[in-house]
Amino acid sequence: MIRIGIDVGGTGIKIGVVDENGHILASEAIPTRIDLPFSEQITQMADCAKRVLAESGFTIDDVQSIGAGVPGVADKNGVVIFCNNLAWVNVPFRTEFQKHILKPIYIDNDATVAGLAESVAGVSAGTSSSVFVTLGTGVGAGIVIGGKVWSGAHGIGSEIGHITMMLDGEPCNCGNRGCLERYCSATAIIRMARVAVAEHPESLILSMAEGDPAKINARIVIDAARVEDPVAVQVYQKYISYLAQAVNSIINFLDPEIIVIGGGVSKAGDFLLTPLRQEVPKYAMYKSVPSARIEMARLGADAGIIGAAMLG
Amino acid sequence: MIRIGIDVGGTGIKIGVVDENGHILASEAIPTRIDLPFSEQITQMADCAKRVLAESGFTIDDVQSIGAGVPGVADKNGVVIFCNNLAWVNVPFRTEFQKHILKPIYIDNDATVAGLAESVAGVSAGTSSSVFVTLGTGVGAGIVIGGKVWSGAHGIGSEIGHITMMLDGEPCNCGNRGCLERYCSATAIIRMARVAVAEHPESLILSMAEGDPAKINARIVIDAARVEDPVAVQVYQKYISYLAQAVNSIINFLDPEIIVIGGGVSKAGDFLLTPLRQEVPKYAMYKSVPSARIEMARLGADAGIIGAAMLG
Repeated sequence: MIRIGIDVGGTGIKIGVVDENGHILASEAIPTRIDLPFSEQITQMADCAKRVLAESGFTIDDVQSIGAGVPGVADKNGVVIFCNNLAWVNVPFRTEFQKHILKPIYIDNDATVAGLAESVAGVSAGTSSSVFVTLGTGVGAGIVIGGKVWSGAHGIGSEIGHITMMLDGEPCNCGNRGCLERYCSATAIIRMARVAVAEHPESLILSMAEGDPAKINARIVIDAARVEDPVAVQVYQKYISYLAQAVNSIINFLDPEIIVIGGGVSKAGDFLLTPLRQEVPKYAMYKSVPSARIEMARLGADAGIIGAAMLG
Repeated sequence: MIRIGIDVGGTGIKIGVVDENGHILASEAIPTRIDLPFSEQITQMADCAKRVLAESGFTIDDVQSIGAGVPGVADKNGVVIFCNNLAWVNVPFRTEFQKHILKPIYIDNDATVAGLAESVAGVSAGTSSSVFVTLGTGVGAGIVIGGKVWSGAHGIGSEIGHITMMLDGEPCNCGNRGCLERYCSATAIIRMARVAVAEHPESLILSMAEGDPAKINARIVIDAARVEDPVAVQVYQKYISYLAQAVNSIINFLDPEIIVIGGGVSKAGDFLLTPLRQEVPKYAMYKSVPSARIEMARLGADAGIIGAAMLG
């Protein structure tokens, strides 16, 4: 038996046929067409799924289930309640998709799906509890407990980016202030760097951004920190300290076997992992008790397809 | 079959025989004797358990399992790693207790145990996921997911009192700054009230505390707020706003079916519950999606015995 995984992104949709071990047998990408009504978007996804299935050498009869990861929230009935990037509100994804392929369909948040992928075929394979944290424009998460995805009783859990980390802190897109993602995302690195270069225009960060603070991105700040630009080092150390406190909060709340770091910022690799592993124990409440291993995600761009397929 | 529950507190130990529905059939309390070596303390507990068992009319053969809730952390081997109030470090509770009564023994944190009790025989009975939050000197929690207690992969989870809620905030006993319990415990109410009466010595809070800020407790502040002392109202509203943000963080992280409020501050009853239920939705990320019910704990002082018995 094989499964189909659908990774719905804001600019592209990746669809793959995945075997029982989480290996992708065939895949294809199509552009995201938010200009179309959702029923037509879903028709395109189903057509693509049929093509990929044919390419893999299997037939509909071999498909055990279909899964989709969406950058939003879905309920237990397969309805996508919110999906900002696709401008979807209350879209009956399962019902609509089953008009084309009548198989069990599971839908979950994209970070949850990526976390599941890592726990099946990635760095957290073999563990029974994990928290996958994706550090990008925002901060998302995927929680696995007892070997199963936990996205909450109402499908709105694992939004660790919106834990309050700073009472009355930086305003957040969600309407609150001081959310964790205001301090731990790539966006947070950029914000802190812009403040720093305003005071220290001599920083390498600014010259790497062609003198334009609007062009600063997280990669520039991290690259400048690598070559020891003092301003970049200071910004990056502060970021690592915030991230360590976020990881410590995850340990204190849920105490998983492993915490997996993914998303754009994780491309920094050991330059992120090494100081983070040094910093987290400083905040540990029970210093002599073992706690979560901290690892980098391994599956990269494939995690979306694999994890979606594994939702079944 | 019956079970024995042991509620180990800093000043007293309560031991009860509990039936399958979570009802206490017989119970007894003995003083906590931290002056004795742990082996003698555990001997006293076992002796008490035997007396309570006899009183209930059952015998050792009827005992399915024994559970203990401790104000600390235990590992999977039944070793109490830390228990500050009893000055226990790495105490082999299970092995020691089984010298007296050879039955399966389960040990967990007291807040976890109280949460389990509520989910079996209290306000969260019938739910499959819950977070019990105890608001006392500190803030503890008990997490139930899929009907089972989750205290972490290393036994150190559900310490939501030590999530970072205010970067570089108030210093905490754990060594960090800005922990959630610095803003949401009874201790937080007292701290905020002391600051407020220093500025407003005319407040009813100070006269109720006999003019001595050292005598302010959470109950005084809450009682003064009930009769609309302006300073107390302001402190209490701030506290409710912090607590609502903490509840919102729990929803965003774990999205349980129900969040149960217990501990000393919960004695405020509806005077806490009503404004909290009004305040939490203001922070909700998905305002149109249902989220956790917020309820008050029901079992009170019995929760420790019942939950401990139910650990089996």
